[in-house]
This record gives sequence, C-alpha cells and structure tokens, in this order.
Amino acid sequence: MPSYTAPIKDVQFLLHDLLDVSHNDIPGYDELEADFTGAVLEEAGKVASEVLAPLNPVGDVEGCKLENGLVSTPTGFKDAFEVMKEGGWTGLDCDPDYGGQGMPYVLNTAVGEIFSGANQAFTMYQGLTHGAYSAIHAHGTDEQKAKFLPKMVTCEWTGTMNLTESHCGTDLGLMRTKAVPQDDGSYKITGEKIFISAGDHDLSENTIHLVLAKIPGGPEGIKGVSLFIVPKYIVKDDRSLGDANGVSVGSIEEKMGIHGNATCVMVYNDSTGYLLGQEHKGMRAMFTMMNEARIGVGMQGLAQAEVAYQNAVIYAKDRLQGRAVTGAENPDGPADPIIVHPDVRRNLMDQKSFVEGGRAFLLWSANLIDRTVRADDKEADGLVSLMTPVVKGFLTDKGFDMTVQAQQVFGGHGYIEEHGMSQFVRDARITQIYEGANGVQALDLVGRKLAQDGGKHVMAFFDMVKTFIKENAEDEALKADFLEPLKQASKDLQGAGMYFMQNGMTNPNNALSGSYDFMHLFGHTCLGLMWARMAKAANAALAAGASDTAFYETKLATGRYYMARQLPATGMHLARIQTGADTVMALDAEAF
Amino acid sequence: MPSYTAPIKDVQFLLHDLLDVSHNDIPGYDELEADFTGAVLEEAGKVASEVLAPLNPVGDVEGCKLENGLVSTPTGFKDAFEVMKEGGWTGLDCDPDYGGQGMPYVLNTAVGEIFSGANQAFTMYQGLTHGAYSAIHAHGTDEQKAKFLPKMVTCEWTGTMNLTESHCGTDLGLMRTKAVPQDDGSYKITGEKIFISAGDHDLSENTIHLVLAKIPGGPEGIKGVSLFIVPKYIVKDDRSLGDANGVSVGSIEEKMGIHGNATCVMVYNDSTGYLLGQEHKGMRAMFTMMNEARIGVGMQGLAQAEVAYQNAVIYAKDRLQGRAVTGAENPDGPADPIIVHPDVRRNLMDQKSFVEGGRAFLLWSANLIDRTVRADDKEADGLVSLMTPVVKGFLTDKGFDMTVQAQQVFGGHGYIEEHGMSQFVRDARITQIYEGANGVQALDLVGRKLAQDGGKHVMAFFDMVKTFIKENAEDEALKADFLEPLKQASKDLQGAGMYFMQNGMTNPNNALSGSYDFMHLFGHTCLGLMWARMAKAANAALAAGASDTAFYETKLATGRYYMARQLPATGMHLARIQTGADTVMALDAEAF
Repeated sequence: MPSYTAPIKDVQFLLHDLLDVSHNDIPGYDELEADFTGAVLEEAGKVASEVLAPLNPVGDVEGCKLENGLVSTPTGFKDAFEVMKEGGWTGLDCDPDYGGQGMPYVLNTAVGEIFSGANQAFTMYQGLTHGAYSAIHAHGTDEQKAKFLPKMVTCEWTGTMNLTESHCGTDLGLMRTKAVPQDDGSYKITGEKIFISAGDHDLSENTIHLVLAKIPGGPEGIKGVSLFIVPKYIVKDDRSLGDANGVSVGSIEEKMGIHGNATCVMVYNDSTGYLLGQEHKGMRAMFTMMNEARIGVGMQGLAQAEVAYQNAVIYAKDRLQGRAVTGAENPDGPADPIIVHPDVRRNLMDQKSFVEGGRAFLLWSANLIDRTVRADDKEADGLVSLMTPVVKGFLTDKGFDMTVQAQQVFGGHGYIEEHGMSQFVRDARITQIYEGANGVQALDLVGRKLAQDGGKHVMAFFDMVKTFIKENAEDEALKADFLEPLKQASKDLQGAGMYFMQNGMTNPNNALSGSYDFMHLFGHTCLGLMWARMAKAANAALAAGASDTAFYETKLATGRYYMARQLPATGMHLARIQTGADTVMALDAEAF
Repeated sequence: MPSYTAPIKDVQFLLHDLLDVSHNDIPGYDELEADFTGAVLEEAGKVASEVLAPLNPVGDVEGCKLENGLVSTPTGFKDAFEVMKEGGWTGLDCDPDYGGQGMPYVLNTAVGEIFSGANQAFTMYQGLTHGAYSAIHAHGTDEQKAKFLPKMVTCEWTGTMNLTESHCGTDLGLMRTKAVPQDDGSYKITGEKIFISAGDHDLSENTIHLVLAKIPGGPEGIKGVSLFIVPKYIVKDDRSLGDANGVSVGSIEEKMGIHGNATCVMVYNDSTGYLLGQEHKGMRAMFTMMNEARIGVGMQGLAQAEVAYQNAVIYAKDRLQGRAVTGAENPDGPADPIIVHPDVRRNLMDQKSFVEGGRAFLLWSANLIDRTVRADDKEADGLVSLMTPVVKGFLTDKGFDMTVQAQQVFGGHGYIEEHGMSQFVRDARITQIYEGANGVQALDLVGRKLAQDGGKHVMAFFDMVKTFIKENAEDEALKADFLEPLKQASKDLQGAGMYFMQNGMTNPNNALSGSYDFMHLFGHTCLGLMWARMAKAANAALAAGASDTAFYETKLATGRYYMARQLPATGMHLARIQTGADTVMALDAEAF
C-alpha cells in the first residue's frame, strides 16, 4: 500500500525562506511564525498520513454507492470526516464571524495540498463545501450568511457547485435549468445537472447546493444565468432542518478515478432556491471565486505528483535490478537498487524538480490571493488573475505527467492496482479537466488575461523577472545556472507575446492556435523564476550558517536540474507558437 | 459506446504509394497487389468493427475471473475467438508448412493494428500465441515444431511467454525458477512467474507456456538461463492431450487496464518441460524474437492512439459549445461544433499527424523485418535492430499521450467510463511498460544499438536521410515545409550522437542520462523522414492525376503540421542531452 508523508520541511522553506510570510505586510500574516506554521503542518501531516492516506485505496476500490436514492461513501470516510471536523480543518481559512479560524489562504493551501495528496477524493467533500461557502460569503445577504455559513464552516452541512448540464459544460449560455420566481421572493428550480462532485453522500446532515439556472424572460445566453442556493433540506430560521426540497440523485457516474467522491447527476424538481447575488449576474458571482477554485485544482495536480513521487522514490531505493554502469553500488546484494540507473534518476529528478518548483509557484500565487483579499492590493489581484490559468493548467498537466512517470518507475508493478500508482494517475487525470478544461485555461490566458487592463499585468510579470535578474546580476552563484536560463525563458515568453500582438489582430486564430503552448511556456518561465528565487534563498541560508546544509544543497542541485533539463522546453513552445494558425487550421472539418 | 473503423485507405497509401510493396524485391511480396491487400484489410476491418470493437468495453467492465483454478474470459470472447480462428487470422503470417498463410510481416502488422485498435486485450491472446509460435519455429527441433506448431497456428492451442518473477523483471539474471534434467531428456520445472498475459483462459484446449528457468549447476546470472516448452496438458505423440502438467494459476492481477486479458501468476510445480534451443542460451532465443515482439507493442500503442483519435473526431464534430472566434460556423444551431476552436484543432492535429506518421514508421519497420527474414538482407537487419527500441518506446509514449489528448477533447465526458475514452488511456498505458519498459528501450538504444557493428547502422540511417534530402533538393514542393525541418532534426540527432561519443567514454552516465531524450529525438526524426517521404509520394500521386485529390492534399497538410509543430521538439531534446550527467546524477540517493 502506498504511503504519504507531508512535505513539511519544504513547505516551511517556502513560507519562511522564500516568502518570509511572517514579515509580509498583510493583515493576519504576523501570526505565521515558523513555529506556528510548523505546528499546524505537523498536525495536518499526522491526519493525512494516519487517517486519510490509508483510506485512499479503500475509496478507490469501494467507490460510492447509490441505493434507494441515497449515496453512501466508502468504509471509513464518515469517521475520517469527523476527524476533520473536530480538528477544525474544515474552516481553517474561514471567517471567524461564522466560526472559522481566519487563517490566511497561503496556509490553507499548504494544508490543502497535504490532505489532497493523502486522499484527493475524500478531501474534495470539504473542498466543494469551501467553494460554496466562499460564494455565499462573497455574495450572500447577511441573512443568508447567518443562516448557512456557520454549519458549512464546520461541515455539518456540506456544499456543491452545480454548473454543467449534459449538453453544456464550457458554454454555460446553453443552460436549460429554470428558476421561476415565487411570490415570497424565492424561486422554484427545475432541471438536471451533471458531474456534481460530492452531490450527495452520508457525511453531513444537509447539502447546500449552489445552482446556476435561468430565470424565464431574462437575457439570452450566458447573460441570463443566475446563481441560487438550493438546500437538500429546507433550512428553517432557527437553522433546524425542515422538509426535503425536491432534490434527488439521478445516478452516480462510473469514472476513471476519484471513486471515493460521488459524482452525481442531480435532479431539481420544483426545488426551492434563493437567489445568491443579483439576477442574471450568476456568472459574475462564479467568477469572483474562480481564481481560488482554479488554484485549488492546480494544488490537487501538484499533490498527486508529490505522493506519486514519494512512492516512486521508496520503490527505486528498494527494488534491486541490474548494476550501476560505473560499478556495483550494492556489491553484497544480488543487484543494485534501481535508483543508481541514470534514466531512473532522470525520471525522479523530473518529478522532484517539478514538485518543488510547482509548490513554490502555488504558494507564491496563494500569497498573491492573500495580498488581494486581505491587503486590497490591486497589482497582486491583476497578477494572480493572469497567473491563475497557468497555475491550473500547467500544474495539472505536469502533475499528471509526473504521476505517469512515477508509475513507470514501478515497471509492471506500477500497472497493477496493488501498489496504488495507478490510482494516482487516474485521480490526477481529472484535475486537467474539471474547473475549466486546460484548453479553456489556455484560451482564458491568451484570449482574456494577456490583454487585461492593457496588458499591464503581463508587463508587471516581465518587469519582475527583469528586476530579479538585474538585482542579482553580480551573483556568481546564480548567474550561469539560474539567471541565464531564466533570461532565455523570459525572452522566449516575450517573443511569444510579441508574436501574438503582431499576428493575432489580423487573425485571432494565430494567437489561439498557440494558446496551449503559451500556457506551458509561461508555466516553465514561472517555475524558472521560482527556482532562481529559491536558489537565492538557499544560498542566503547557507551563507547565514544554516545547520541543515544538506537540505539547502539539495535544493540548489534540484533547481539546477530544472533549469538545465526543463527550461529548454521554452524554445520548443516558442517555435510552435510562431508557426501560427496556418498548419493548425489548414484542414476542413470533413478532412478529419 | 466508442466505434472503430479500420484506416484502410491510409494503410493502402503506405503499402503502395510509400513502400510500393508489390514491386519490392522480397520473396512473397509479389502477392501484395493493391487489390489483394485491400481485400484482406477490408475483411479484417469488418471483423474489427463488428466483432471485436463491441466487445472492448465488455472486456473492460467484466474482466477475467478465476474460479476453481480456471480463468474465464469476458462474455463474447469465446465466440469472437472462433471468428478469428475460422477466418484464418491467427496464422496469417505463419509458415505454410504448419498450416499458416505465409503472408509477409508487413501485412500482418497492418492487420494487427486493426485488430488491436478494436480490442487490444482480446487481440493479445493470439498475439502471445504468435510470440510462442515464433520462438518454437525459430529454435525448436523438427519434432517439437511438428508437435506444437500446427495447433498454435490455428490457436486451438494458445501460447504464453513466462519471463518475469516477482523480484526480477528487467534483470532476469536473478531468476529462481528451476529446471531439473530428467533421464528421458525432459526437465522438471518448478517456480512462480508473474505478469503472464493470457496465462490461462477458456479460449483454447491447451496452453503452450514458454518458460525461462535455470538448470542447477549452470552459469551464474543471465548466462545460466534456458528456455522451455511447458504445456498445460501433456501433448502425446499423436497430438492428443494427456495429463495435466502441474501448471496452475496462483491468482489474476487487478490492473489499470486490459481487463479483458488475464494477467496471471503462474505456478509450475514439477511440471514437465522440454528444452527449446540450447542449454543456457535462453536469452539468445528470446532475443531473436525481440524485434518483432517490440515492434508489435509499438503497434499496440499506435493502435490505441488511432481508435482514441477516431472517437475524438466524432465527438469534436458533434459537440456544440461556443462559437468560432472568426464568426459562427453553425449559425442556425445553438453553438458551433468544438472542432472549430483552434485549440481543439491543435489537439486533433497532434493526434492525426502522429498516428499517420507513426503508422508509416511502423510499416516501414515491418518491411525491414521482411527484408531481413525473407531476403536475408543484413543491412535491413542492422537498421531494424537499431530502430526497434525507437518504434517501441516512441510509438507507445506518444501513443499513450495521444489517447490522453483524445480523452481531453471530451472534457468531463472523457473522464466517465461511459464514452470509453478512459479505457483507451488505461489500455495504452501498458504498452509503455511491458516487453521492456521504455527506459530499458532507451538504454538498449544508447547503450547497445548505437555502437553496434561500429556504429554502422546509425550511420546508414543518417546517410538515408542525407540522400533523401539531396535527391529532392530541387523539389520546391518539399523544400521549405519538409526538407528544411528534416535537415534540422537530423542535425540535432547527429549532435546528440556526437555528444555521446565525446562524453560517454569518460563517463558513461553522460550518455545514459540522455538516453530517454535521445529515443524521442530519434523518434521525431524518423517521423520527420516518414512525413517527407509521404509528402513526396502524395505529390507524385497528385502529379500522376490521382482522382482522390482531397486525400493527398490532406496528407500533405497533415505532414506540414507535423514538421512545423512537432519537429521543434528535437532542439529541446538535444539541449537536455548536452547537459550530460551533471545535474541528473548530482544527488546522493539519500537526498531523494
């Protein structure tokens, strides 16, 4: 059975050496001293390793069951959910006014990666609840907030997000679910939603569904979509539960992975709903939560890569096959552990350098969210808005690839379910799809975010890279290994942006044909920047006489690998982008 | 439910426009007139679409069952196997002396792709039998051949290959299975083998296991391994079946995919075995079949990419979401089909250009096998030996990636099992692992094949590329779109080879750290060469007044895409390779 160990030391390095959180000028961050974050991460790590990880294969094998209209979760999920509630983990970054602990998003993200790495399907139950909580918190009336949030913070009531219908996913303007206004100000919701994660289950007393629907007579398409709160059981004014609300589960889906999470077809039949935010402004309400939700999915992709990597390392040190080409390293044994072989190393270094670089990118982005939300920093807002599709798309694409590489380390043993490597691959796969498929992320990046506010945010990113390189130009320890490759990557990224500007006007397909490559080119550049910064932080720690020199030396070596072996991808992406739409759009649809 | 249509037109183009098989100077090839191959492919396509493809999801859902020591295959497999037998498909390229049809390997490969694309797990039963047939045909005594081959050609008896044990896969020298010589010249085989595909099932009367084992007192390690024929039931001299032979199924594995094929733990308990080939030369006997077996696995990876692509195209033309950015293309509908979107195009073109280029590479390699075996062409032998790890590693890695991309076209609908896209991904995944994991292919390529016969074969490849470019230098239709990118790719490949020569002597890890990138760099160069040749063939057909201009124009446009969008990967691979072992091997094993 696979194991999971929280990457506490690495997170601590990022929070304190890289981001220096406790000295950030952000309200609430002064609490984030290293001792405190260390203690929180330790506790989270214990829950992850001891409670959640052992249930991961159980959830995969048993899956969820729909019987007599009710969904039951796999053996042990209920007890584990109680552990999460009792530990206060469900409301870690929620508003103290509603019973939350008020911690910054950056810490919640670090903890979220730990839970998700141990058991993605399980952690989604509270993750979805958090999404619904955020929407009500941002757009609800005081009455709605008072009514729903306290029990959502504790996960006594869980939440869901209902967007997709069978004929419309990305293009929500085609939606058919209806919301008919009633005399008492409520609405009657009727329609069918699909792919509803945590749509129904036995972990909570009530489920608070957030449902997108159209009010008859409203504007056509996406502009006529509104958001509604639709509880499974009507909530009375004293927060006690009333009648069932006409919400039922049509079926649960058989999926490639995340079997422990019930993916439901939800049927709403004259269900009572309460408008959340304004009429016809449902998409806007969704959008305000989108950065957090998408960064959260990027986190999931990274988390699966981390746990897969951990298990690949254990196997590579344990499995004896062949001899090191440079001479036996385990001469008394029948063979050497496979970690001696250069191609196994290459594989593991790909994983290690991605996971650590990706985690830096993730927490750096989470920090920008805190700056935006807690310090009202407009520049941070613009930057994180630009970065969000990159965090989501790049971390999940590469995260999935890394689970595949980790599985490969096991050879045939990785293909059988027994070792759990297949589950990491199958679970990671969904992260590239939900919360906006990665092609949609690329479209958002190139079609919307690049030009947002006159291109100000992407220019700010380039300035940030340029400034870093300039400020450290004399640092010989960074120059050849980190600054030069970063400079090249940034140049490639700018070249791509330039190509879009010069060729996208005449034919937007010239830009959109390169959107996916651009997302990856951007991702590599961001990880390059993160690695250069981490290298600087590691050198500083060593210079300051840090006792754990091995940790910092390893960090530097891992960064050098990323710069040398991964950043060359930027040139390839640029070359592809510069071929424009000609070859991409050459064929008629019939020719396929 | 997914569908499958045999790519007959494309195969015919490759056999006749590209390879011009019926005019090849190879014994037996004169039969391969276009009418004949067309008829064979048509028939195979019918069986594939009507019989095998509908059973593919059945096999995935039901899997195989072990009850009372016997394995049963999924519903319908038995009847379908009868169809394969009756059609003579199981012995298509087998020796007529033993009841085979004696067709060339190139045709068998084309047909194999069709069956495998429709149902990989099913097709493996006869594929494994073919592997065992080939080993006995190549190394058996006349008596052994007469006894076993006729019923293996018809698949009345099926076959298996038993190499792996739980503690040894790649490193077979660690093997523990024993073969104790008996007075009558036979051996008693005792041991446990794992991951035995088609190890037991209800499709045939008898199973002829080929088992690697060590004769006590023989040389240590891999040099002491011998190969044995171990039938499930003893075969009497009149080919009737005698007693059970102490062969039992320990368990069947739960796997990520290919559920329709029983992957067994096989237990041999004093089972009677017959030496195949010479004592202690078991690995040599295996090696003679390895090129064919590995090319066969490359074929499987390609086949899954093809069927996944076909279904992605159907979905992309059918699914309505959003509008083309350049103006509505389905103005009367609620939205445009997603095939209008540039990033969906990019995705589909990646698939299409890989599948068609990969198929050319596959059939070109199969043609080299025929040259080797039927025309005793030593140069072809050397070249295909060099190419084999590239065919296996590159076609399966990219084949898998393409199934993932095809699944992505479906968004959330790709993640649920209903549409079958998940199965293509899960089934394709094994091709990167079995028959030598792809890291081992890369090692074989760089550690063995490159330097084989003084590097003669790789030089022959470079000469082939150079000659093609030179001979067509004045062809303006090829120059910019095909020859220039091919030249660059070939230059990158030579640069990588040069790097290995200059740096691999002092430290072999400098070469081995780049082996995986080299395999991909080589694969891209081969597909580039194939596309350049196909472009030439397409231009020639158009110039000769071929009626189906759309087919040839599409071929050219698809090739241009590959050259423009995929070949830039070669520069990235070269850059990675040239960083050598320094960053790859920097860390101690403990630092992971």
